[in-house]
This record gives sequence, structure tokens and C-alpha cells, in this order.
Amino acid sequence: EIVAYLQRALSTKRPLAGKKLLVTAGPTQEQIDPVRYLTNYSSGKMGFSIAEAGAQMGAEVTLVAGPVNLPTPKGVNRIDVVSTDDMYQAVIKHYSDQDIVIKSAAVSDYRPAKQANEKIKKQSEQMAIELERTQDILKTLGEQKTTQFLVGFAAETTNVENYGKQKLIDKNLNAIVINDVSKAGIGFGSDDNEVLILVNDGTEIKIDQTSKLAIANQLLTEISRRLEDKEQ
Amino acid sequence: EIVAYLQRALSTKRPLAGKKLLVTAGPTQEQIDPVRYLTNYSSGKMGFSIAEAGAQMGAEVTLVAGPVNLPTPKGVNRIDVVSTDDMYQAVIKHYSDQDIVIKSAAVSDYRPAKQANEKIKKQSEQMAIELERTQDILKTLGEQKTTQFLVGFAAETTNVENYGKQKLIDKNLNAIVINDVSKAGIGFGSDDNEVLILVNDGTEIKIDQTSKLAIANQLLTEISRRLEDKEQ
Repeated sequence: EIVAYLQRALSTKRPLAGKKLLVTAGPTQEQIDPVRYLTNYSSGKMGFSIAEAGAQMGAEVTLVAGPVNLPTPKGVNRIDVVSTDDMYQAVIKHYSDQDIVIKSAAVSDYRPAKQANEKIKKQSEQMAIELERTQDILKTLGEQKTTQFLVGFAAETTNVENYGKQKLIDKNLNAIVINDVSKAGIGFGSDDNEVLILVNDGTEIKIDQTSKLAIANQLLTEISRRLEDKEQ
Repeated sequence: EIVAYLQRALSTKRPLAGKKLLVTAGPTQEQIDPVRYLTNYSSGKMGFSIAEAGAQMGAEVTLVAGPVNLPTPKGVNRIDVVSTDDMYQAVIKHYSDQDIVIKSAAVSDYRPAKQANEKIKKQSEQMAIELERTQDILKTLGEQKTTQFLVGFAAETTNVENYGKQKLIDKNLNAIVINDVSKAGIGFGSDDNEVLILVNDGTEIKIDQTSKLAIANQLLTEISRRLEDKEQ
């Protein structure tokens, strides 16, 4: 009885003990030439908060991080990458034995079609950078999914909820975290966020503005409950 | 005699006392839409080192900085900017009463011709970003120069010395600092640099790999000597 009680008490505090969690975070950078590149405003704070919360909840955490200025959370195995293609390789390599995969990184959808080896000299008043699509990491993960609980993020500025619902279905996700990056005080670079979580069982969880760490805790708590339900 | 001695001693240690120094540092960011932007690999370390060395040498330092993760050097007045146009406005505003202006920032030569107010949804396999030239800050400073000692930087990957010499003349500079950003261990992001300084009096000063702060000190020492010569 005491052992059972302790196990329950411990599992309440460490509900992800024995689980493997892969998190992606930050932006990616797509090089144009040795000087210039294309990127986005993701600071990596949301993903690093998820990694931190996951480790605190007992998970074995792998964090695949784009170029950010953030310290590695305690107990987390961090893999640094630069481009979307780098991130794709790192995520695919570790995907098959994960229990939970949360793709919070804001990867570049496009990269320059050609990378110049030398700095491109400025010339005419106008120029254009030809772009091509990068690998769709989340789509690939959705296609290759076996038992993983797969979570995507939708950072939008308009029609956020509709885009998010469509993405949940299109990418074969278990849940999606939707945030409106056009709102001041939340999203890119901020310590706070305000999100709507849609789960593929129909649940909708609205989290009002709070710290990214609090959101990470709530997201992982929701996921851990669903993993328990599956096991029972 | 004692007063004269002290003045000499002090002026040796603070050779830029009473001088106004404007330094630009870091990259600029050119927004494509609320999520994506175009930028470059400048870390701002070279410019921040010049600002730090300038303050130590007694100058009144204004540092116009692009988005970087660096602490403001002691005694330096810092103005944060994002785009090349922001930087242009800040520099022009403070230009007329400066004694020395050193443009070490790596500004974007081009910006997106159109900025989207909403995140651009990914669509086709290929796309192109149409770009237009930004304001040429250094050229404008060269044209509007009165008594300022104006220094430019040339960060190149090929033909570095020739490009630098041409830029010194074309932009009406007093000196140019040339570095080869394709060499490992120096340049972007590194604490070290290796430069060739060309002065418009014909002097060429080669500085082998050393800290950016040491290079900043040597550059400012060379400039302060020339300002003294002018005053005598």
C-alpha cells in the first residue's frame, strides 16, 4: 500500500517519467550567400519552456533548437541546427522511438533556390531572390506516425482558428497549439503567450495570457492524461 | 610645468577627450511579413568594441545598434534600430556635430519591395521575393561630410582589397577597414578579427588576427593622431 501510494504520488509529480519527448524550438536560417540569410522572429522561448517543463515532469527530453540565445534547460539533451533541412534530418533521426513530439519551431517554408558561395555584390535598383519550398517536417512526421503523440503549432496573423483546425487534419496531428502572433505582448520574443489548443478528440482548451512555462505545463499535462488513457 | 605634464599624460591616456564619436554596429533586419525577415550574420561585436574603446579613450560615444544580443559598453549612449532606414534616420540626425563616424554595421543593401501586413501563406513550390535597394547610408555621409573623419567597413569574401580601395574613393571616406569574412576564426560572430586599414593619406595598416577590442584600440589611435595633426 505504501509503495502504491508513493508511486501514485511520484507519478502525479512526474507524470512523464519513462516517456521520451522530442521538442523543436526557435527559427531556422536559410542562407542566401556567405553574408545574408532569410529567417523569422521566433525566439525559441515557447519550445525551450516545453523542454524545461517536460524534464521537470520526468520525461527524457531531446530539444532540437534553431539559432537562439537561450540556455539549455536542466536535464535536456540539446541538438543545435541552422536550416530547415538540418532540423528535418535531426528530427527524423530521433522520431521512431519518441512518445511525444512537439514541433514548436518556426521553420522556413522556403529557402533560396540557389546559395551563392561568394557575397552577391549589390547591382541594380531591383532584384529578386528565387525561393523553393523546404521539406515539410510536420507533414512527414504525420505520415510516418506510429504511436507518437504529435503536436504542431500554428502561428498566424489572420483567420488563426480556421487555419489551425485545417492543419490539425491535413498534417495528421494529435493536437495543435494555435497562437495569433499579431497580438502585442504575446508570441514572438515575449515571455507570455495566449493559445488555443485543439485536440483530435474534439477537445478545445483556451489558455488566456500567461507565461510560456505555464502554457507548457498545461499542454504537457493534457498530453500525459491522454497517454495514460491509452495505456489503460 | 606640472599642469602641462599632467595634460600630456591625460591626453595620452584619453586621446579622444572632447571628441564626439558615432559608431554603427550589428546587422539590420528587413521585414518581409509579420513573421519573416531578411538579415545578415553580423554579431555587432566589432562595432561594440569600437564604442567601448572610444569611451575608454575619452570620446563622447553614440552607438547606433541593429538587433544584437550585446550589453551596452560603459558610458556609451546607445540607440537601437531595426531596419536600414531606421539606421539611416538615426545616423543622419546625429551626423553634423560628430568628429569621428565609424560605420561598422552590416546594413541590408536590399529590402522587400512590398511588406505584407499578414503572414504570407505558403503556396507554390517556387516563389520569389522582389527586392529594392535601401538608402546607401555611407554614400550619403560621404556626400554630406564637412569636418568629420569618416570610416567605412568592407566585409567581403573575394577580391577584398580591391573592393575596399574602390569603396574608400567612391564613398569619399577618410579610411576603410577591410576584412575577409570568408576566413574561419575571424569576422562574423567571432571575438577576433584580422583587418587591413587603408587611410586616404595612403597609409596601409595590416593588423594580424587579434581581438576586436585590440583592433578597435589601434583604429581609434590611428584616427586620434590624424585629428591632432589636423589641429596643429
